[in-house]
Amino acid sequence: MSGDPENPEHPERAAVAAFADDFVADLREWLSIPSIGTDPAHHEDVARSARWLADALRRDGWPDVQVWSGSGALPAVYACLPAADPDAPVVLVYGHHDVQPVDPVEQWHYPPFEGTLVGEELFGRGASDDKGQVAMHLLGVKAHLAALRADHPSVTIKLFVEGEEESGSPNLTRLLDDHVDDLACDLVVFTDTPLYARDAPTICTGQRGLYGAEVVFTGGTADVHSGRAGGSVPNPATAIARLVAALHDDQGRVRLPGFYADVIEPTAAERADYATLPFDQDVWLANSGGAQAEAGEEGWSTLERVWVRPTAEVNGILGGYAGPGLKTIVPSRAAVKLSFRLVPDQRPERIADALREFVDAHTPPGLSAEIIPRGDGTPPYAMPVDHPAVRAVKEALEAAFEQPVRFSRTGGSGPAALLRQRIGVPVVYLGATLPDDRIHAPNERVVVPLLLRGAEAAARLWRLLPERLS
Amino acid sequence: MSGDPENPEHPERAAVAAFADDFVADLREWLSIPSIGTDPAHHEDVARSARWLADALRRDGWPDVQVWSGSGALPAVYACLPAADPDAPVVLVYGHHDVQPVDPVEQWHYPPFEGTLVGEELFGRGASDDKGQVAMHLLGVKAHLAALRADHPSVTIKLFVEGEEESGSPNLTRLLDDHVDDLACDLVVFTDTPLYARDAPTICTGQRGLYGAEVVFTGGTADVHSGRAGGSVPNPATAIARLVAALHDDQGRVRLPGFYADVIEPTAAERADYATLPFDQDVWLANSGGAQAEAGEEGWSTLERVWVRPTAEVNGILGGYAGPGLKTIVPSRAAVKLSFRLVPDQRPERIADALREFVDAHTPPGLSAEIIPRGDGTPPYAMPVDHPAVRAVKEALEAAFEQPVRFSRTGGSGPAALLRQRIGVPVVYLGATLPDDRIHAPNERVVVPLLLRGAEAAARLWRLLPERLS
Ligand SMILES: [Zn+2]
Ligand SMILES: [Zn+2]
Repeated sequence: MSGDPENPEHPERAAVAAFADDFVADLREWLSIPSIGTDPAHHEDVARSARWLADALRRDGWPDVQVWSGSGALPAVYACLPAADPDAPVVLVYGHHDVQPVDPVEQWHYPPFEGTLVGEELFGRGASDDKGQVAMHLLGVKAHLAALRADHPSVTIKLFVEGEEESGSPNLTRLLDDHVDDLACDLVVFTDTPLYARDAPTICTGQRGLYGAEVVFTGGTADVHSGRAGGSVPNPATAIARLVAALHDDQGRVRLPGFYADVIEPTAAERADYATLPFDQDVWLANSGGAQAEAGEEGWSTLERVWVRPTAEVNGILGGYAGPGLKTIVPSRAAVKLSFRLVPDQRPERIADALREFVDAHTPPGLSAEIIPRGDGTPPYAMPVDHPAVRAVKEALEAAFEQPVRFSRTGGSGPAALLRQRIGVPVVYLGATLPDDRIHAPNERVVVPLLLRGAEAAARLWRLLPERLS
Repeated sequence: MSGDPENPEHPERAAVAAFADDFVADLREWLSIPSIGTDPAHHEDVARSARWLADALRRDGWPDVQVWSGSGALPAVYACLPAADPDAPVVLVYGHHDVQPVDPVEQWHYPPFEGTLVGEELFGRGASDDKGQVAMHLLGVKAHLAALRADHPSVTIKLFVEGEEESGSPNLTRLLDDHVDDLACDLVVFTDTPLYARDAPTICTGQRGLYGAEVVFTGGTADVHSGRAGGSVPNPATAIARLVAALHDDQGRVRLPGFYADVIEPTAAERADYATLPFDQDVWLANSGGAQAEAGEEGWSTLERVWVRPTAEVNGILGGYAGPGLKTIVPSRAAVKLSFRLVPDQRPERIADALREFVDAHTPPGLSAEIIPRGDGTPPYAMPVDHPAVRAVKEALEAAFEQPVRFSRTGGSGPAALLRQRIGVPVVYLGATLPDDRIHAPNERVVVPLLLRGAEAAARLWRLLPERLS
């Protein structure tokens, strides 16, 4: 880190530095609560985690702190810290305090629920995803107030930290609608995405959406011996394979009807930015399950394939005999689990329609097809890179990181589009973690100095926003 | 049945009728021994079954009866009954005395190991496959001797009844080679195939062969989250589906290189015979696992598709997540179990080579392919329909059944080609069971009057053969 914390040009940095030790101590305490939302045995821990966060906010002086335990959802935390000026913009910071399971626990080098500081790294489940980033915002608010030497922030800051994100936010729509007045704001700051790399800080401007469904082909009512009937009746496993093979053309493009009709391509500026990001194909492959080679849609780089291009993936395929050795049957049934990653402005419901049409066209005579959707899907989301709020976040990050900040996106999916839709305001991304933080895996960690930079960026953002959003 | 058993034109029929009650009583006794060769818990029963057969042969006066317990195989029974003329032809009857398991046992209407006579039907595991047909030959020999009023048959009759057929005859090659002198003969009569139908008796002239292998595609060392890498790395499940889809063209022909190069098409006479056989598509589909429609190679009837055309079948396909719901991964591995039914003169080893070539051509960059063969495969076998031995069997069957006998084949696989190869003589088929005897399934039965007709045909055949093979 460079820059003098006592330098009056950097009051937010000085304040962050002053609070840094307390910040780490507090975060370690929060990480010790195993708030695994996907495991009913840990639902009480999710509630404890919510109470811990509420208490921390009250200690920090937030006047309005609530734990929302209704709406069918695991406890969420809401808080509001009003600006002095009642006409100041209102921002809502979104994050989550539930965490992934820790299996296989024997692969952890440190206890997953202690918070172990090793040099600059803090190890523990949730350190990066997403308690670390929520804590970063608490620190950012404290630093903002300290830098202002005021009791009230420049913008009204609301915090909404849900407890079901790792479960796919199944009750989020109801939660948002039940609290529509509390959550009213001018801008959502979504805090659950990483920087591109430590030496290449970026502002995320979008996440892909998701639509998943299982397709089942059924032939007869029972498997039949292939000596008796092989070659004379339809084979559902062959048919499901032919359906899957037809999903992509030879250029790797998805062949669902109208699949690309709503796709908005990235701007030249975004593509240019992506092209300048440091990229090591070997590292990418190693971090992608040890893949042996790249693949994908022709005409796009690896990062573009994952960030701005939609895909169709086979998540699982199953039909007939799966045991050891050979069993000479014609199976009666075969199924494939498909998921589609979507980009703006694709819509899950239109993809569902296109899949139905595609399956109908690829169901051979003598087989029945069934499509079992996995929920309604998650819409994609992206912000225009020249939006004033995006520019403000970028400026805040560049000041905190003291270097140019480029654009990025993430290939995964989250509730940003849902927040946009239900609350009715733009959503910008602000995150300071790293793609190799091993979220959802053993040995999750966060790089503490990056969180401190992120807190500084948030503190700067609150100062910038009244002017930028006017 | 028509015809007067006392009519001197039908001495074999008269003799069969005289022995019929004893025949059923003996067969019921044999069926009470649960000689399930695939189940090690029943291997002692397989040995008991062999001893039972040996004792029955000795009671019938066969002078040379042996139980072969070596060669690594479950016990087989060998017997020889020499002709009076040392220069008479030598025939070897092949059958098996091991039986399939009886699961699900609760679906049996009668005890599987008692032998329950209900009208003309005898119910029990092995009644049709294959104890009933072996017993039919014991009866045929007795009827032949009675009709001749002699102690020695017209041909030297050898019997070879193995105990591992339902296990795929894994030690048969060694067994044959260890007893090559005992088994020397001029003709093998293979007795493990059915008539086409009760009102349409046929002579089987061939069985399909089999080659099976599992193809495995491996990408990375671990599944990877599709949000992180989906669209940028190869998906083994998609690739295995594309391989399977490429296996057949749109006319249902198999696209392995050179797959049809060695195929001998049936003669016009055979196809004409097949076309006159009674065929009910609805019954066929009901008996084929309740399939909803026919399918297969264009230009061939259903019977031809199963009898005289080679196929490629997916017996199982598996990759990625197979549990409930959705898991958004790119799998690291996917596999397909394939089997190919073969017709003369296709050879399993050439199909293995063609599959290797095909897999190589369909392995995308970034994936590793492995082929795991399931044994060496079973070669196909067929006899020319105008061979003198085939004509003799046909004549014997027509005399016994008192109607024209047409040609048929079976779609399954057996050791006929192996017998042909190791013993070095032609193999003809003689069977009197039915395709709907529910072999390998609950409620296996045999139609006793058909076995009696079959015994008469065998008895007639032994009388005909010296002249026809000269
Ligand atoms: Zn998260
Ligand atoms: Zn059999």
